[in-house]
Amino acid sequence: MSYQIAVLAGDGIGPEVMAEARKVLKAVEQRFTLSIEYSEYDVGGAAIDNHGCPLPEQTLKGCEAADAILFGSVGGPKWEHLAPNDQPERGALLPLRGHFELFCNMRPAKLHAGLEHMSPLRSDISSRGFDVVCVRELTSGIYFGKPKGRQGEGENEEAFDTMRYSRKEIRRIAKIAFEAAQGRRKKVTSVDKANVLACSVLWREVVEEVAKEFPEVELEHIYIDNATMQLLRRPDEFDVMLCSNLFGDIISDEIAMLTGSMGLLSSISMNSSGFGLYEPAGGSAPDIAGQGIANPVAQILSAALLLRHSLKLEDAATAIENAVGKALSDGYLTGELLPAEQRHNAKSTSEMGDYISQLV
Amino acid sequence: MSYQIAVLAGDGIGPEVMAEARKVLKAVEQRFTLSIEYSEYDVGGAAIDNHGCPLPEQTLKGCEAADAILFGSVGGPKWEHLAPNDQPERGALLPLRGHFELFCNMRPAKLHAGLEHMSPLRSDISSRGFDVVCVRELTSGIYFGKPKGRQGEGENEEAFDTMRYSRKEIRRIAKIAFEAAQGRRKKVTSVDKANVLACSVLWREVVEEVAKEFPEVELEHIYIDNATMQLLRRPDEFDVMLCSNLFGDIISDEIAMLTGSMGLLSSISMNSSGFGLYEPAGGSAPDIAGQGIANPVAQILSAALLLRHSLKLEDAATAIENAVGKALSDGYLTGELLPAEQRHNAKSTSEMGDYISQLV
Ligand SMILES: CC(C)[C@H](C(=O)O)[C@@H](O)C(=O)O
Ligand SMILES: CC(C)[C@H](C(=O)O)[C@@H](O)C(=O)O
Repeated sequence: MSYQIAVLAGDGIGPEVMAEARKVLKAVEQRFTLSIEYSEYDVGGAAIDNHGCPLPEQTLKGCEAADAILFGSVGGPKWEHLAPNDQPERGALLPLRGHFELFCNMRPAKLHAGLEHMSPLRSDISSRGFDVVCVRELTSGIYFGKPKGRQGEGENEEAFDTMRYSRKEIRRIAKIAFEAAQGRRKKVTSVDKANVLACSVLWREVVEEVAKEFPEVELEHIYIDNATMQLLRRPDEFDVMLCSNLFGDIISDEIAMLTGSMGLLSSISMNSSGFGLYEPAGGSAPDIAGQGIANPVAQILSAALLLRHSLKLEDAATAIENAVGKALSDGYLTGELLPAEQRHNAKSTSEMGDYISQLV
Repeated sequence: MSYQIAVLAGDGIGPEVMAEARKVLKAVEQRFTLSIEYSEYDVGGAAIDNHGCPLPEQTLKGCEAADAILFGSVGGPKWEHLAPNDQPERGALLPLRGHFELFCNMRPAKLHAGLEHMSPLRSDISSRGFDVVCVRELTSGIYFGKPKGRQGEGENEEAFDTMRYSRKEIRRIAKIAFEAAQGRRKKVTSVDKANVLACSVLWREVVEEVAKEFPEVELEHIYIDNATMQLLRRPDEFDVMLCSNLFGDIISDEIAMLTGSMGLLSSISMNSSGFGLYEPAGGSAPDIAGQGIANPVAQILSAALLLRHSLKLEDAATAIENAVGKALSDGYLTGELLPAEQRHNAKSTSEMGDYISQLV
């Protein structure tokens, strides 16, 4: 069998960390005698510079022809003066999500053993560890709801956005959260604002219905404001957090920051036929781009997730994850994960990629 | 001069902590020879039990006749089975905010010297301290925007909410944030999601306009997802956070939790004529109600804010705040603020009230 991956490295550290993911993929292809073809396309700021828009037609066509998208990261100060719609993040990610109906976003955040000190939480809280996955609805809600715009004149001019959810949309993402919980610690925390939003009231109703199909999974509801707070006190009590598009944006970033090691986190954005976009949780980090110090682990783990979820190559995916786990526990770390006094032991971006490839 | 305060103690610990606030107000009246009249009204669950709805007509009329509202807290398990609209929090707070057009919500969160260990943050972060105030728009946005409801049938049934902001509404809350910053560390961080929401794009435009009137105040914009993260790493770099209704709900709770001592935090909800509602940041805490262990400080400080902002009694307000500060630095603390091994020194709710009254 032969596979096609569309590679969209993007801006900032994107191309550097992507090079390491490619190294690791090459190693895994050899070990498992796989045949994967890669096609590279411009996206984000690089695409604005080369083609005048963040998501050119040929990039979109290339993604359509592929089995999955391996995405780097986009954006940087160079393009910040552009109108919101034309900026790299907004102009590339939202249309990709919409076009491929990537409704299911999964963002795991786990505090790695040995890296508890990286968490911004108090040591008695972080030492308990945590392992949360945010299951976020990604193609509806206030991101895509119509009408959205402006009307009126002068001081009465107003802007408006519409949050909108159908039963169908809620049901399909809720199912995924419960299925994920079944393979984990069997708890779903559904995040909403049912004391204020009509969408959240419907959300709760449908989530309750779905819960009946999963009697072995515990369901709790929590308001978004309270969720933001409880994650700070007792992150270890959460397993799967089920969120609408906007609340998932907030919760997934909060749990990522709680690990203190965003360079290790990757995420999945998938549609109902298994096509998906895989990307690191962190941004394009223009401040450290080009220095060879960026952590490639999140990009490498994105590749593993791609192999598992879109190409159904479970063994190859696990081999990468084990290699990463071994590298980290061997103390193979980039600088941002080391205390100042140990930073002379920091590994470079390519040293990380080499070491992990060789362990695959 | 004579003043009228409407007292709405509510549910859970509300009545207990309100009793202590009344003690302290009495002491301050004597010291400054003030004449304040109090009228008590049912609200929340207590009002549901006695009158069938969380905000009875006589309570609303009583508030209209007063110079300000001293609010306790509402809600509890007894009323959780009710429809969202009929529940104590939703059914009392939102109509009060709407009726009196309490558009300006200010929620300060400061890490008190000596209580850094209460913060859930890592000690090297909390030891730097922080002092943030969230200025939240409270009568518009997705809370009150129309249309809001449901339509359609079966799996296509959908719910919708409308986020809506006018220039006028953004301008008046932005002005308050800049004025507040002028009396503080001269920095406004405006929280939005301008890469997705039309409302946020208008929000940024108007905030930029207002900023021009305050050249000595620094303005920065931050996305809500990033704000949630940065508060965990560097809370000390924020001063005034300017937020729409929904984002302010989230940010104000996050910063409150970051102090780890919600029992010390109170908040202001004000309209343009100086009428306001003053309430503790924490909830009704039904789990500890009736035990005499709840911390009355937030309620006492709410009374101080009421004196300052609605009654313009600056000296009396300061006297209360100084008394509270002295009590805390004397180690006069309720149990939740003490490490387990010192909890035998915990003061009761009424001991706190007595001590603070006597210091006024
Ligand atoms: C860039 C932005 C539109 C995007 C979002 O809000 O979804 C990003 O924050 C994310 O979480 O992937
Ligand atoms: C009770 C609820 C409607 C309210 C809100 O969301 O505003 C509360 O969370 C608050 O922050 O005062």
